[in-house]
Amino acid sequence: MKTFIKHIGQLATIANEGTGAKKGQAMSDLNIIEDGAILFRSGVILAVGTTEQLKEEYAADIQEAMVVNAHGRLVTPGLVDPHTHVAYGGSREKEFEMRLQGKSYMDIMNAGGGIHATMRMTREASEDELFDQTIKRLDSFLKHGVTTVEGKSGYGMDLETELKQLRVMKKLQQSHAIDLVPTFMGAHAVPTEYKGREGEFVDIIIQEMLPVIAEEGLAEFNDVFCEKDVYTPEQSERILEAGKKLGLTPKIHADEIVSYGGAELAAKVGAISAEHLLKASDEGIQAMAEAGVIACLLPATALYLREEAAQGRKMIDAGVAVAISTDCNPGSSPTVSMPLVMNLACISMRLTPAEALTAATYNAACAINRQDTVGSLEKGKKADIVMWDVKSYQELQYLFGVNHVQSVWKNGKKVI
Amino acid sequence: MKTFIKHIGQLATIANEGTGAKKGQAMSDLNIIEDGAILFRSGVILAVGTTEQLKEEYAADIQEAMVVNAHGRLVTPGLVDPHTHVAYGGSREKEFEMRLQGKSYMDIMNAGGGIHATMRMTREASEDELFDQTIKRLDSFLKHGVTTVEGKSGYGMDLETELKQLRVMKKLQQSHAIDLVPTFMGAHAVPTEYKGREGEFVDIIIQEMLPVIAEEGLAEFNDVFCEKDVYTPEQSERILEAGKKLGLTPKIHADEIVSYGGAELAAKVGAISAEHLLKASDEGIQAMAEAGVIACLLPATALYLREEAAQGRKMIDAGVAVAISTDCNPGSSPTVSMPLVMNLACISMRLTPAEALTAATYNAACAINRQDTVGSLEKGKKADIVMWDVKSYQELQYLFGVNHVQSVWKNGKKVI
Ligand SMILES: [Zn+2]
Ligand SMILES: [Zn+2]
Repeated sequence: MKTFIKHIGQLATIANEGTGAKKGQAMSDLNIIEDGAILFRSGVILAVGTTEQLKEEYAADIQEAMVVNAHGRLVTPGLVDPHTHVAYGGSREKEFEMRLQGKSYMDIMNAGGGIHATMRMTREASEDELFDQTIKRLDSFLKHGVTTVEGKSGYGMDLETELKQLRVMKKLQQSHAIDLVPTFMGAHAVPTEYKGREGEFVDIIIQEMLPVIAEEGLAEFNDVFCEKDVYTPEQSERILEAGKKLGLTPKIHADEIVSYGGAELAAKVGAISAEHLLKASDEGIQAMAEAGVIACLLPATALYLREEAAQGRKMIDAGVAVAISTDCNPGSSPTVSMPLVMNLACISMRLTPAEALTAATYNAACAINRQDTVGSLEKGKKADIVMWDVKSYQELQYLFGVNHVQSVWKNGKKVI
Repeated sequence: MKTFIKHIGQLATIANEGTGAKKGQAMSDLNIIEDGAILFRSGVILAVGTTEQLKEEYAADIQEAMVVNAHGRLVTPGLVDPHTHVAYGGSREKEFEMRLQGKSYMDIMNAGGGIHATMRMTREASEDELFDQTIKRLDSFLKHGVTTVEGKSGYGMDLETELKQLRVMKKLQQSHAIDLVPTFMGAHAVPTEYKGREGEFVDIIIQEMLPVIAEEGLAEFNDVFCEKDVYTPEQSERILEAGKKLGLTPKIHADEIVSYGGAELAAKVGAISAEHLLKASDEGIQAMAEAGVIACLLPATALYLREEAAQGRKMIDAGVAVAISTDCNPGSSPTVSMPLVMNLACISMRLTPAEALTAATYNAACAINRQDTVGSLEKGKKADIVMWDVKSYQELQYLFGVNHVQSVWKNGKKVI
């Protein structure tokens, strides 16, 4: 089945130059076609151009295609969310309420709150329960124009539960419309029983977990929470280097709470991306720019935690390629709205509307090594396409807090 | 036609105690019915209770009703937005982009930006154009669960355009599902030609505009922007007192940019509500509590302008009744999402999930004198009802940035 979308007001192709994530000025280059059109079949884009061009060059194909009139609306690549903890058990809305009622940290812990609550609920959930919970979230991602989602393990912190999270994601990848890209994050926190003996747990991750994950092919990326009172840069480096030997690409939660050398470490180990970076040092930003590490910034998390957002503007100006993400997780960012994250990238991090869109599509795809198949609208790429009920990418960011998705095609199939 | 909604997980009736806006602890009292049900006909609520109760007491009515199974979802009153500038001409997304591109204030003004751009575009728009633009925004409000919206004039600053804005709102009130409550705001800014002679423009408002507005019955409320370099408290008081004599209830944009005695003035003139209040003084807050002035807080505006949000928590604790609103306008809050505003009330202003819901329903209705007909779900009130695709009011605020609206009934008719 072929589909032909015509009379697109702005067709933001975000076509890349073939290699690497877009940095600096390039992030503003959306490669927009006015009165654009796109033709696709069996999930693959056949042609992109103006309505007039395609009508002339593909007359026969269009004859047999389903024709959609965009009536001047904006069309973009499907959004990519390169950083989530989407496959978690339970829910923590009661904890949110308790906190706002002024309950103390201890009250909340005693009522079973915090990350350890999610660990417990994820451990207790059966594979089927975890699958069903996560499907609901993925459905909601799709409604918000997101067609590719990265997901991390890390609520198990024992091999069994880590494997359960990763297997659920594998099953979802096979059964859900969304493409789910798996990351192992055994070092997401320190299990209570290893407090003060973090090094021993690092050994377990390296010797007992990573080899099994790699052997079963359950993850592409290996992530670690490098932060004061969690894992030191040295411990983080050991874990990431061990993963590299097994073919897992490093990612790193870095400099979220204090400046801790996480950005520098990302550059040193050649991480594909570094995450959060609220407190990244100038030297760390420079090192990332030079090493080509993508900054994956999470402004919804900053909003939810009432923190100053990462310095996205400064990073782009320093030559870093910036991607953005929901950080979807039950503790610090219980949202699936990439449209809001784009708005916040403009409002809180001073990205331009064009940069925010690049950060949520092409650069986000680069941050999970999917730039050859998604993140831009080009001949031969996947037909992951969003039509928005606005006339321009500027309106998409300006009319904030609203999900402007009109239609979504995933792999060429209309799903919303 | 009767409708019966059954098996509501949480039916948040927010039933009032008969008088006044909810203050302090009362704002947390949602009056929730579990496994709730609601029966309505011809736009009026007939009964509210548990599913079991209503099945027993209204068996005959239910027999002939359209039955909706809520399957455990949350149901609330339709949201009320008590402060918008929704009937404006043009759009300013290019200005948003220019600002993020680092263009200067003068560049933007030269490109036709700022409030004067909206004035010009509103003046230039025909009544039909203004009508069509505003309909689109009202449709979007409805999709976000909002069934009553206050709207202000104030982009004319000449009698003709002010009348045009108010007449468009009157036409919309008659033709659109949403109830639109009109406010005259001739003193929204100082027209360029009256800079330095603000007193003369105040005279024009009082002598030439207010009498016509009142005579034609085009507004219920009279609002003024009391702010340094705009209108002084003395000028504001003159305008509001003049309106009172003509039967218009005072509202006041107060203490948004600097602490300027706006909250105190609101108490002095007996305003129904004071708006913004980011910089309200402790004395002003106390005066509002004593005079029973509702604080209408606008956390989406604070977000968009990167300002610290108003001290909602402190105001509630001081005994002020708090309402919240989008402030929908093209310059400082181009959004219609009351769900996001509720989320921000929790995140940025530390309201509890229950308080945020009260602020967006019952208290918002009180802020526009509609508490007798909307804002809570009680026998005899309007059947303005929202079903949300979450199971609790806690989830509604916790799973932030997402429009969880499942269905909306306005005046008993299913519109979403
Ligand atoms: Zn994370
Ligand atoms: Zn306003």
